[in-house]
Amino acid sequence: MESNYSSSSIPPANIMEKLPKSKTLELRQKHIGGAMKMFFSHDPVKIVRASGQYMYDEQGNQYLDCINNVCHVGHCHPDVVEAAHRQMQVLNTNSRFLHDDMVLLAEKITSTMPESLSVVFMTNSGSEANDLAMRLARHHTKGTDVITLDNAYHGTVVTTMDISPYKLDRNTDGVHPIPDHVHVASCPDVYGGIYRDCDYPGEDMGEKYAADVDEIINKIHSNGRKLSCYISESMQSCAGQVIFPKGYLKNVYRSVRKAGGVCIADEVQVGFGRVGTHYWAFQPEGVVPDIVTMGKPMGNGHPVSAVVTTREISDSFQKSGMTYFNTYGGNPVSCAIALAVLNVIEKEGLLEHAIIIGQYLKDKLRELQKELPIIGDIRGRGMFVGIALVKDLKTREPATKEANETICRMKKEFILLSTDGPHENVLKFKPPLCFNKDNVDVLVNKLAVALRDISTSSEEKAKNTQEINELSHDKNNSAVVDFGRQCSGFSSSLTSEVVGEPSAKVMKVH
Amino acid sequence: MESNYSSSSIPPANIMEKLPKSKTLELRQKHIGGAMKMFFSHDPVKIVRASGQYMYDEQGNQYLDCINNVCHVGHCHPDVVEAAHRQMQVLNTNSRFLHDDMVLLAEKITSTMPESLSVVFMTNSGSEANDLAMRLARHHTKGTDVITLDNAYHGTVVTTMDISPYKLDRNTDGVHPIPDHVHVASCPDVYGGIYRDCDYPGEDMGEKYAADVDEIINKIHSNGRKLSCYISESMQSCAGQVIFPKGYLKNVYRSVRKAGGVCIADEVQVGFGRVGTHYWAFQPEGVVPDIVTMGKPMGNGHPVSAVVTTREISDSFQKSGMTYFNTYGGNPVSCAIALAVLNVIEKEGLLEHAIIIGQYLKDKLRELQKELPIIGDIRGRGMFVGIALVKDLKTREPATKEANETICRMKKEFILLSTDGPHENVLKFKPPLCFNKDNVDVLVNKLAVALRDISTSSEEKAKNTQEINELSHDKNNSAVVDFGRQCSGFSSSLTSEVVGEPSAKVMKVH
Repeated sequence: MESNYSSSSIPPANIMEKLPKSKTLELRQKHIGGAMKMFFSHDPVKIVRASGQYMYDEQGNQYLDCINNVCHVGHCHPDVVEAAHRQMQVLNTNSRFLHDDMVLLAEKITSTMPESLSVVFMTNSGSEANDLAMRLARHHTKGTDVITLDNAYHGTVVTTMDISPYKLDRNTDGVHPIPDHVHVASCPDVYGGIYRDCDYPGEDMGEKYAADVDEIINKIHSNGRKLSCYISESMQSCAGQVIFPKGYLKNVYRSVRKAGGVCIADEVQVGFGRVGTHYWAFQPEGVVPDIVTMGKPMGNGHPVSAVVTTREISDSFQKSGMTYFNTYGGNPVSCAIALAVLNVIEKEGLLEHAIIIGQYLKDKLRELQKELPIIGDIRGRGMFVGIALVKDLKTREPATKEANETICRMKKEFILLSTDGPHENVLKFKPPLCFNKDNVDVLVNKLAVALRDISTSSEEKAKNTQEINELSHDKNNSAVVDFGRQCSGFSSSLTSEVVGEPSAKVMKVH
Repeated sequence: MESNYSSSSIPPANIMEKLPKSKTLELRQKHIGGAMKMFFSHDPVKIVRASGQYMYDEQGNQYLDCINNVCHVGHCHPDVVEAAHRQMQVLNTNSRFLHDDMVLLAEKITSTMPESLSVVFMTNSGSEANDLAMRLARHHTKGTDVITLDNAYHGTVVTTMDISPYKLDRNTDGVHPIPDHVHVASCPDVYGGIYRDCDYPGEDMGEKYAADVDEIINKIHSNGRKLSCYISESMQSCAGQVIFPKGYLKNVYRSVRKAGGVCIADEVQVGFGRVGTHYWAFQPEGVVPDIVTMGKPMGNGHPVSAVVTTREISDSFQKSGMTYFNTYGGNPVSCAIALAVLNVIEKEGLLEHAIIIGQYLKDKLRELQKELPIIGDIRGRGMFVGIALVKDLKTREPATKEANETICRMKKEFILLSTDGPHENVLKFKPPLCFNKDNVDVLVNKLAVALRDISTSSEEKAKNTQEINELSHDKNNSAVVDFGRQCSGFSSSLTSEVVGEPSAKVMKVH
């Protein structure tokens, strides 16, 4: 495997280091907030260069990147770098002046959307975008209450943390509880959620999960409060690469609107063509949101994000009397970069590519699944795929420890993979979109070897020990696991008891 | 005046336009949120290029930039552009990996600070930084309540809007009131605030304003609540370039700490050597904050910001059980850029330069003040200067309309200047630090001509009309102005009644 954009002007990795790795680590421990965690914190990786779907450590080792959904069109894509460089030499100022690239970007983004979504606000991060989306919703609806999903993650500022059970469930000092105006609906995960397809054969799972939202709306009304918005990703990332059951979002959006609320689609992790069939992950669901937020892939690593909404909602916000100014939002460099990303997506046919590669990966994984019962579920759209590892196909008991072991093994094989979901048992695949068939072959082959080993060793250990007592780094270790139970709410009993720190060894990406 | 970094590779302005100006405006109106306002919205400026302290419109006109405190070391500074380009070609990923530039930047930033401020969190905007600062304060103190200053602006996300009376005072739909846990202390402006030096001759104004904070703390305690933090800029920007009276911050910090709170210095607009004598504007005040936030100038236009705090506060946050991950925060490109900005500041001696040019400007303005009684107050440190225009030196009645007229006149002379303060009567000067003596000469000469004209025309008009009834675009037009009063609380009676939209013609920069 060769780097895509090798250039003779880029020095070799080993002379790109300014400090020995031990010194970097020492300074990091001294000067960087301890709450900012690293991957593999006991043996972190130092990366000095990246290109396409590859990253390189200080010794020149090449890692295959299966998880970076930010460097969307490939690490250091030359078109994006060139667009940035060209614009940085010329002008980088704020949106108080007229500039062509800002309006051309807004025109281009809205051209990929349903017609009603015609107005853009420019921001710098997914957090800023989701925060603004909720501000827009409040000024438009005059409602206060927000419905979010269990296991959701929407960003790192306070208001987005408020709607992120994925994070707040881990708060142990009691300072940041889920606030009163936020209501958590069940995560519509038919494989591991509170309603599982195997427990409700033949039922309409989309309707079943949507009924939870109806119940929350009733509760809001009976408390004399008013709904402002429902916010969810169009596929849930941190919840474990969850694909919603058919009709779920349609049902929910209908109920939310009936209650006077607006519907926000968080496309920060899942947008920009990752699903392959469409630009945006809400599109295959057959819904039209009132507000769409986008970020991560938008700048291929550069801090840029946006909120897209309707004329009516934008007008309501304008009537609030307050102007919106975002110092960096909509600056010409960020806009030039985002335009370049969209152009590369088109030029290189990355939507179609996402379908082909995603399908190829899923096909190969399904072959492997026949051999390895640790692979419980394979799900996804385009280059957004989740592989749920389980201890038992019938109980669907999460194989948390094994998932952790898998990604540590893969790291040794120079493959960057990660886990997610409330039990951290879902291997997540969301690589740069230039990921190719050869990469899939390498990934699946190495995964096969690792999973075979781990499955065998687990079986052996299980014979000798009470495996249940060994979930030492499972964050759900306080949960009581009902081993006799098969296909009856296993996951939900754990979900409601999520406490403590995640594994010290491995951190999630979100 | 020539552009500093002219390069033959940069095309002339007139071929850098992609759209005719009318088309840019049309697309902006169609696709950009109306709450995002432009300067001179009735006749906006289209900027296609900038260099050093100059900006260029699509016709090639050169504007002198007196207000962009973001492009701190000069628009498109070649060292910063080169550092960005070099790093963008090589690697732009997240902080889950070890990287030298992140730790070197943290080391460099903390080296400019008092020793206790040793831990850094990397973020993307001033808003994100202030939001995180308040999160840190809450987890550390377990307190809930926040003290902010009147007329303060701290950012555009909800939590920072909560502490920004500058914005929330304009909210007319009632959706976003100042929340219960936020307490607004008087803006310690001895020229136009509630306690003016002329009303309290010989009194210790620092103590007097600080006593307001004591009163708030007492109120918080008597309501059975607990203080989390006091947050203020070290010099207030949007409040009208306000310099605090001697001892004010010292007194406040003492009281806040006694009450168990922490002190946050917002250096987003005023840091990175703008004051000249020091890197940070809290330093001339003789205080050491518990948390410092920084942003705007940090990336010379690139979206990057940071929070610096103590080991103890960082540890409290880590103990909250929640990790902090910011997708773009601390990425190698943002870090390389911020390092380049700090290096340019050193290499070009910009702190010393800020002192020299700031003093030269103030000296020239004071000369002009002898001739023109419309100039009520000249204040500032380094290249942060405010010029309060007044209708009457004794009453200090804000000359809002005249200030607006001044900046419109200056625009016609190709000088970008702006107003700020609750009455929008303070001309603000906070240019890129490469601003030079020739630039000051041009600025002051043109300002002199404009102010002479405006003063004369005001005097004439005043003879014929009841000027007070003509404050048609003063956002304080509902206030009852007591003309008989001299030096007795004029400003405060207005401040408490700030309503409605600011002038449609001219928008503030913050």
